[in-house]
Amino acid sequence: MRAPSQGIRSFFEPKSIAVVGASTDSAKLASIIYSNLLENREKGVLKAPVYPVNPSHSSIGRNRCYPDVRSLPEVPELVVVAVPATLAVRLVGESAREGAKAAILISGGFAEAGRNDLEGEMLAAARAHGMRLLGPNTIGLVDKYSGVDTLFLKPTKRLGSGREVVSMLRPRRGGVAVISQSGHLGEVISEELAANHVGLRALVGTGNQLDVSVEDLIGHFGGDSRCSVIAVYLEGARDGRRFIREASRAAAAKPVIVFKLGKTKAGANAALTHTASLVGDLELYRAAFSKAGVVEADSLQSLVDYSVAFALLKPPAGRRLLVTTNAGGVGAIAADEAGRLGLRVPPLDWTARDAVKRCLTGLPLLSALKLGNPLDLTATVPTGPYVEATAAALASPGFDSAVVLPTHQTPAVDPDIAERMGAALKASGKPSCVSVMGRSPLAQMIQDGFLERGIPSFPTPERAVRALAALSSYSDSKPATVAAASEGTADRVSYLPKREGPLPPKVLEMLMSDYGIPSPRSVLVSPGGDAAEAGGLTFPVVCKLISRSLVHKSDRGGVILGIDDESGVASAVAKLRGLAAQLGVEWEGVLVQEMADQGVEVLLGSTRDPTFGPALAIGGGGKYAEVVRDTAVAIAPVGRREARRLILSTRLGRVLEGYRGEARGDITGLSRVVSDFSRILFENPSIGQVEVNPLIVSAKGVTAVDVRAVASGRRQASAPAAGIRGDIDAHP
Amino acid sequence: MRAPSQGIRSFFEPKSIAVVGASTDSAKLASIIYSNLLENREKGVLKAPVYPVNPSHSSIGRNRCYPDVRSLPEVPELVVVAVPATLAVRLVGESAREGAKAAILISGGFAEAGRNDLEGEMLAAARAHGMRLLGPNTIGLVDKYSGVDTLFLKPTKRLGSGREVVSMLRPRRGGVAVISQSGHLGEVISEELAANHVGLRALVGTGNQLDVSVEDLIGHFGGDSRCSVIAVYLEGARDGRRFIREASRAAAAKPVIVFKLGKTKAGANAALTHTASLVGDLELYRAAFSKAGVVEADSLQSLVDYSVAFALLKPPAGRRLLVTTNAGGVGAIAADEAGRLGLRVPPLDWTARDAVKRCLTGLPLLSALKLGNPLDLTATVPTGPYVEATAAALASPGFDSAVVLPTHQTPAVDPDIAERMGAALKASGKPSCVSVMGRSPLAQMIQDGFLERGIPSFPTPERAVRALAALSSYSDSKPATVAAASEGTADRVSYLPKREGPLPPKVLEMLMSDYGIPSPRSVLVSPGGDAAEAGGLTFPVVCKLISRSLVHKSDRGGVILGIDDESGVASAVAKLRGLAAQLGVEWEGVLVQEMADQGVEVLLGSTRDPTFGPALAIGGGGKYAEVVRDTAVAIAPVGRREARRLILSTRLGRVLEGYRGEARGDITGLSRVVSDFSRILFENPSIGQVEVNPLIVSAKGVTAVDVRAVASGRRQASAPAAGIRGDIDAHP
Repeated sequence: MRAPSQGIRSFFEPKSIAVVGASTDSAKLASIIYSNLLENREKGVLKAPVYPVNPSHSSIGRNRCYPDVRSLPEVPELVVVAVPATLAVRLVGESAREGAKAAILISGGFAEAGRNDLEGEMLAAARAHGMRLLGPNTIGLVDKYSGVDTLFLKPTKRLGSGREVVSMLRPRRGGVAVISQSGHLGEVISEELAANHVGLRALVGTGNQLDVSVEDLIGHFGGDSRCSVIAVYLEGARDGRRFIREASRAAAAKPVIVFKLGKTKAGANAALTHTASLVGDLELYRAAFSKAGVVEADSLQSLVDYSVAFALLKPPAGRRLLVTTNAGGVGAIAADEAGRLGLRVPPLDWTARDAVKRCLTGLPLLSALKLGNPLDLTATVPTGPYVEATAAALASPGFDSAVVLPTHQTPAVDPDIAERMGAALKASGKPSCVSVMGRSPLAQMIQDGFLERGIPSFPTPERAVRALAALSSYSDSKPATVAAASEGTADRVSYLPKREGPLPPKVLEMLMSDYGIPSPRSVLVSPGGDAAEAGGLTFPVVCKLISRSLVHKSDRGGVILGIDDESGVASAVAKLRGLAAQLGVEWEGVLVQEMADQGVEVLLGSTRDPTFGPALAIGGGGKYAEVVRDTAVAIAPVGRREARRLILSTRLGRVLEGYRGEARGDITGLSRVVSDFSRILFENPSIGQVEVNPLIVSAKGVTAVDVRAVASGRRQASAPAAGIRGDIDAHP
Repeated sequence: MRAPSQGIRSFFEPKSIAVVGASTDSAKLASIIYSNLLENREKGVLKAPVYPVNPSHSSIGRNRCYPDVRSLPEVPELVVVAVPATLAVRLVGESAREGAKAAILISGGFAEAGRNDLEGEMLAAARAHGMRLLGPNTIGLVDKYSGVDTLFLKPTKRLGSGREVVSMLRPRRGGVAVISQSGHLGEVISEELAANHVGLRALVGTGNQLDVSVEDLIGHFGGDSRCSVIAVYLEGARDGRRFIREASRAAAAKPVIVFKLGKTKAGANAALTHTASLVGDLELYRAAFSKAGVVEADSLQSLVDYSVAFALLKPPAGRRLLVTTNAGGVGAIAADEAGRLGLRVPPLDWTARDAVKRCLTGLPLLSALKLGNPLDLTATVPTGPYVEATAAALASPGFDSAVVLPTHQTPAVDPDIAERMGAALKASGKPSCVSVMGRSPLAQMIQDGFLERGIPSFPTPERAVRALAALSSYSDSKPATVAAASEGTADRVSYLPKREGPLPPKVLEMLMSDYGIPSPRSVLVSPGGDAAEAGGLTFPVVCKLISRSLVHKSDRGGVILGIDDESGVASAVAKLRGLAAQLGVEWEGVLVQEMADQGVEVLLGSTRDPTFGPALAIGGGGKYAEVVRDTAVAIAPVGRREARRLILSTRLGRVLEGYRGEARGDITGLSRVVSDFSRILFENPSIGQVEVNPLIVSAKGVTAVDVRAVASGRRQASAPAAGIRGDIDAHP
């Protein structure tokens, strides 16, 4: 089988290019693309020859135009198609048959307009001949190194007055690869990079992702030595497991920053079971990002800010931040934001204080200064001492990074502060960001002055701090190793029922036992059976009505607790039989179970997500679980260390860690159980979902008191076997 | 007694001004201020005469300079002082004695530098003569109408090349009053208003707030007819109760928007008791904002964005938002953010769809369009049809407001889109914001073009949506009426102990009874008493060890539950006596209490906050209350309707509303109890704190099972009697 990222290189470094649809009408998209490519070739950036294809013309400008792909002097490695949808389908097919390796389909009018039929036909033709397809409905791509550029947006526009105005900034060549499911947003990110003096490796719009997906491109740029940062605008991964695999591999080499749309859209499967309803879509993506070591940006603005910071700075060695300013308020805001994000703002040590004092010798302000952190040198500090004091403090081994907040409006500050402060920050060797507030031309000159010197400059102190926090979290979370484990395609255990529906109690007991999850001893008193069957258990016991159509049995009186002897069991069985008749549900007997120790109630659930497959949820259990929503989610399987981190991320974790003399819960035992539990769906495709609620966790151990599971009715995993880091703890 | 906002007008509209410290050295702050004021007087903006005061000069320029305030031809109504701190103290005192009504003290070197002594002396002198003081350590103020302007920042700076560059934007005259505890941030907000084409009413820096506080100024601008919006950067109110009162009154007339610093700073009193530790500082401020109808901004950027939106738009009639765009991604981001903020993005009705279709007649794109909301007209829509379709959709009675996201980079869009779309949005009469992404000169022209037409224009779709959400929430929360109730200065109940320490059980019982809070019947078996004293109670009962030094008695075995008869009580009393001896705590007897019904455990606490006085916390109770932190806080007293809203804002509220067949909790009863409970500290200054945990809430009612309270040891409230809206529900 073909590797999924096979052939991607042909999009970026083709030996030859055909532009289908180019014409003498220069307003047509294909004509704009053709002329851009010609221009790049004339500049010597683009080495590949570019051929126009259009049966209506024999030449375009001074160049020969070809009636079809077959007539070209060579088989084009890359074909760019920008013609109406139905025609495009034919031309893509023709290109594939002729041996083209890659096609960029700019045209819209496909799945986004309800024409999935056209897409299917086209994909089949491409696949048959091993051609890869980008789009349809895409702006295509820009490669700043090879000169391939299909952006059909014009760099200038003419005003009513006749004046030509720049309408799009284009970044210089650099290291940031932008992958965007929205062409417009990709272009916007690219402009932002330009405005921040950050270079672009490439920009790719994925459009409808019929063939080439965000995952493919992350994989491609992960292995691309010219790319130093991958910035992604993501609406939804096509294959969640593969997304994790490609992003893990890429993130091990370079920062992968993702802004994922969908804070409020509930997942498609959300309402299926209790557990699924706790697992929001975005939460699972976040779990995937965390597993893969991806840096999450919570907005497009953060995606840009973090990309700029990662492109210009190396991650700090630790979380100790210095804040210096000549205005009090912004320093306070920066410190506040740092605290919120888990950065430390420690005081200056004595050596640093002395060094700072020396820089301020002779200034009247010195006597009134506190020399704290934020180091507020007040509005009267002149530029020189401000720069020197900042450099002196930052030289202290007590700081890993700095946020510098110079106010240029005070009379004491010279307009060349960006030059002098920028040089000092560069020389410090520690990652630093600045924020220069203000909207005047001088403010813009200073903001720009820092950027020209490679110092990220943000319009607000919070954004400067957030960018440094993102850099710091990357140092913490970068995955150390990447390993793969395959999802099962056949059940690991042999006794699962073939038909859909809830698993019977005895099967659940075997399953728990096979996965090492402790359960209370129990006996099933069958419909015709005798209560004396429960004689071997240790009292007290609990009796539970068994009936497949009764879901919330405790709410309906189907659970009788604290039965102290055999006669109690007998009367409970009789009572439950009566209840079944009264409720009109099947009478399938009674489960008699030893009562668990007292402890903390935990909910543990696993379900299949359409994007990510087997997923896991853990949180506070009992009947208020859904109200309290103290839940953490993860992509299954999880290792023991990942399980522990997951547990400790919930408020439940704080309860288990011990509180006010309460016996500490067995977190180590629970972590083992969570890890083992997470393999159940992963290894058994015929189980659709499983939930333990409550799982009782005491200081002595863990007991699964109530387990429910549903057979999915299928024996094969629906997705092709996908590798995924499994029980290996890549994030120690 | 003087009204707290008395004399504020003298700062803004003085009949005469003296500038103390002005000199022939034009670089001195006082000289800059003097020359700015002279310039305003020459322009005719400032009517008041301006006198320089400096014993070292007999003239400055062509104007006579006076040796001291006494020598001036008239008593100056306003004195501006910018000389070193110790000298300033003398001159402020002199001005007060001479009869000046107001002094702006620009100078620093006071409390912020540890010199509280200088401040005390100065304040006494000012108070003795009824003069008001702004500062010290302030940039002073700018009044765009009267021409009073003490900003000492220069509007331009000279570059090394000799070129003069604008270093500070100054807004035009308008309606926004900016009150800032940081002079620099106030100036930055003012520049942002200028960049957004929004006019300024006045800018005031409060500096150290020695006398004139943020509260004073909110009160002043609340009653100022030229002011339409009040924007506040707040570090901390000086008098929290007064802040609420002034802000409520102002917010009833116009939007009051506050950005409060302090997300991560724990409140000063945080560690005192359980309840206090749940009440973060910022949470109480948020409770105050909510009570007063203040719009909270979570950052300086939001403060600016909301101020711009409120200055330019009227609040929408409802929460139904139309999003239109010619690029998919930004529309999705806007809808996502709208959902997160509780705005609705409903589909177009048939009439609106037809109207939109008519605007797009003849365009090839029409066949592929979905006509949803976001209304994505795709990159090929020309300017005219885009504008017309937006206007047609917005005309539908189904929408209250719009966020319009035009992408100018596509070839189809003309550069005059701001002119045409701006006019259409204005004509719609519905509040609309736009976001034009991009950093090119054309992008800036279009962004500016919208602002020139009074349409708020933001760099990201999220910020546009957030601004509209803030407008919408103002419509919802605007306080309808303002009423005042006084905090008690003497205890309402007569039986409280005079000395500090925990209140004894019988006092607690009387207190609960006097405030109508149901408690289980109980009997105190005194140290020498007989268990038979408990004979009149209904079994089962619970026995609790009474000992003032035992705080968490249930954790130490001091609570024995489920006692079924008198002999059980006797043995429990014996056991608890033994426990007291073993723990080495006072033996003060045993409280025998009837057991409460089963129900939901609630925590109800009240404590005194140093800023806001009596405050209230409610949330999930029981021993995990501090871990789960499901708590809402409020400023006491709260009315029943406010109590209900508070309860429903917690997860506890969802539990009480009923869940999975669980009996519904008595929310009405609980609201009444919360409201009554909130008056306990408010009406009894000698109680320092009180906590009920758990308060059991069942379908049948509410029972305070365990109550603790501490006497503060004082009979008088420390703060002067401050009016506050009490049991009046101003937010229906």
